[in-house]
Amino acid sequence: MTEFGFIEQIRTRFASLPDNGFEGIGDDCAVLPIGGGESLVFTADLLTEGVHFLRAATTARELGGKSLAVNLSDVAAMGARPVATLLSIALPPNAADAWAAEFIEGYRELSATFGTALAGGDTTRSESGITINVTAIGRAPSANLKRRSDARPGDVIFAAGELGASGAGLRDILAGRCDTPQAAVHRNPQPQVAEGLWFGTRPEVHAMMDLSDGLASDLQHILDRSGVGAEVEVERIPVAPGADVRTAACAGEDYKLLLTAAPDAAERLAAEFAARFGSPLHPIGRITAAPGLVWLRNGKPEPLDWHGFEHY
Amino acid sequence: MTEFGFIEQIRTRFASLPDNGFEGIGDDCAVLPIGGGESLVFTADLLTEGVHFLRAATTARELGGKSLAVNLSDVAAMGARPVATLLSIALPPNAADAWAAEFIEGYRELSATFGTALAGGDTTRSESGITINVTAIGRAPSANLKRRSDARPGDVIFAAGELGASGAGLRDILAGRCDTPQAAVHRNPQPQVAEGLWFGTRPEVHAMMDLSDGLASDLQHILDRSGVGAEVEVERIPVAPGADVRTAACAGEDYKLLLTAAPDAAERLAAEFAARFGSPLHPIGRITAAPGLVWLRNGKPEPLDWHGFEHY
Repeated sequence: MTEFGFIEQIRTRFASLPDNGFEGIGDDCAVLPIGGGESLVFTADLLTEGVHFLRAATTARELGGKSLAVNLSDVAAMGARPVATLLSIALPPNAADAWAAEFIEGYRELSATFGTALAGGDTTRSESGITINVTAIGRAPSANLKRRSDARPGDVIFAAGELGASGAGLRDILAGRCDTPQAAVHRNPQPQVAEGLWFGTRPEVHAMMDLSDGLASDLQHILDRSGVGAEVEVERIPVAPGADVRTAACAGEDYKLLLTAAPDAAERLAAEFAARFGSPLHPIGRITAAPGLVWLRNGKPEPLDWHGFEHY
Repeated sequence: MTEFGFIEQIRTRFASLPDNGFEGIGDDCAVLPIGGGESLVFTADLLTEGVHFLRAATTARELGGKSLAVNLSDVAAMGARPVATLLSIALPPNAADAWAAEFIEGYRELSATFGTALAGGDTTRSESGITINVTAIGRAPSANLKRRSDARPGDVIFAAGELGASGAGLRDILAGRCDTPQAAVHRNPQPQVAEGLWFGTRPEVHAMMDLSDGLASDLQHILDRSGVGAEVEVERIPVAPGADVRTAACAGEDYKLLLTAAPDAAERLAAEFAARFGSPLHPIGRITAAPGLVWLRNGKPEPLDWHGFEHY
């Protein structure tokens, strides 16, 4: 069973339960309107040793930051401000004390950067590896929330940063080269919190999500949820230094925002983004009414066997 | 480092961060007032194989229920209604498919019993054991919330059910006897959700929490947070069938509510509880102005080396 198969099974089996005001599963975060025109959003990510990280290839401090970053990225992808997290951590005896203190320091540093409170959590012993779960809570005016389901035919598809550095870094780490610039990017993802908040205030931004599993896989979620298709121009995919275009399209953990915007406002949006954040917003293609994800090279469809990262 | 030492270290190091409206760490749940006289509460529990459960000694379905139950108990302990959960689960290859489907079914059954939505979560592969994190979200009128910090000298201390069955069951399981009634109680905890909601509506109930680590340890948290002491009459501790009084006072995972109530309203509270829920509310002692937890036998202090469960 794949991760998405498992989630689909869960969604089906829980469909008859009351929703208690929560929007259903299927976006970067769950949404709960709380009155006064505001909503809270919720997301959780579980990191397990040997699957999401190798203890020998990352410092505890970096891992503390990354555990938080991947969740803040999901909150940012909704256009919401991360306000608090709950941290659960299972530690084997050989990672207690000094390791745990460094982990907490990395977690605290990134919490301070984004002004996020630590509201609770759980700590426990583990018989084997380290496991970390972070639940993040965000808050936003309900009108600012961006979902995967709002892409419209004609929308310009944007990537809010260069792609592939993290994937290239993972390749370096698995080859034993932990000191490359790309390996450092892989270990220290920077969630686009300010960028996500800014996109939240822009009505011309329709759909948004964060790129955690790779463009090829993540864009498909927007297409599925919105009932649309897309054409992506391979030459326009912004490839980070040290990566190739296939890595940029297929590897995960870039944690850059992927969004679609109304065509008549797209150029101005990109210009204002560049002025505000000092880096370009990269147009990579268009949403189409016809379903399916089509890769274009020199304006012509090219059959590419490109897929994103599968969790298991 | 003990669990409580680790939590204390975290609390200290995060004290300088903004709270974004969240009450600080230290209760069964974190509290966020959301306007309109209402609050949300949040709690997380992490269960790891070999520490919190043995796969050979529990069914997947029971574990699905228990993973949810321990969190609903924390929400109930605040006087709040559980409205949604986020489920994160790491599965090794030998627990995929059939095991996972049974786990989800147990989780769904208890969700249906208490009308709780599944709002999100994460699923991933594990290199070693099964790890489960549940984050539960509750909702309540802010005036109904019960905290550990509100016990007052003179309050009557109540246990809302018999204690020790789960501890006796764990002893049975560790001795290889998995089919005793107590072992079944240990594997199938029943959170006091309706009881917690009812206590929430009673202003004479001052402090409340759930008994997850054992009376000897948990009551101490109420005393510490409230700046008070307590006298507990050993003869009045309600001992579940198959348990002894030491197990009832020291073993964990009973998930019964522990509360303190104004002395002039205590008798009526107990009578109405019994009438409504068909089981007694057990008075076990009194809150004192003098600090410390004193065990009384025949009305006389007795030095007992009783402690609750330590997580690591």
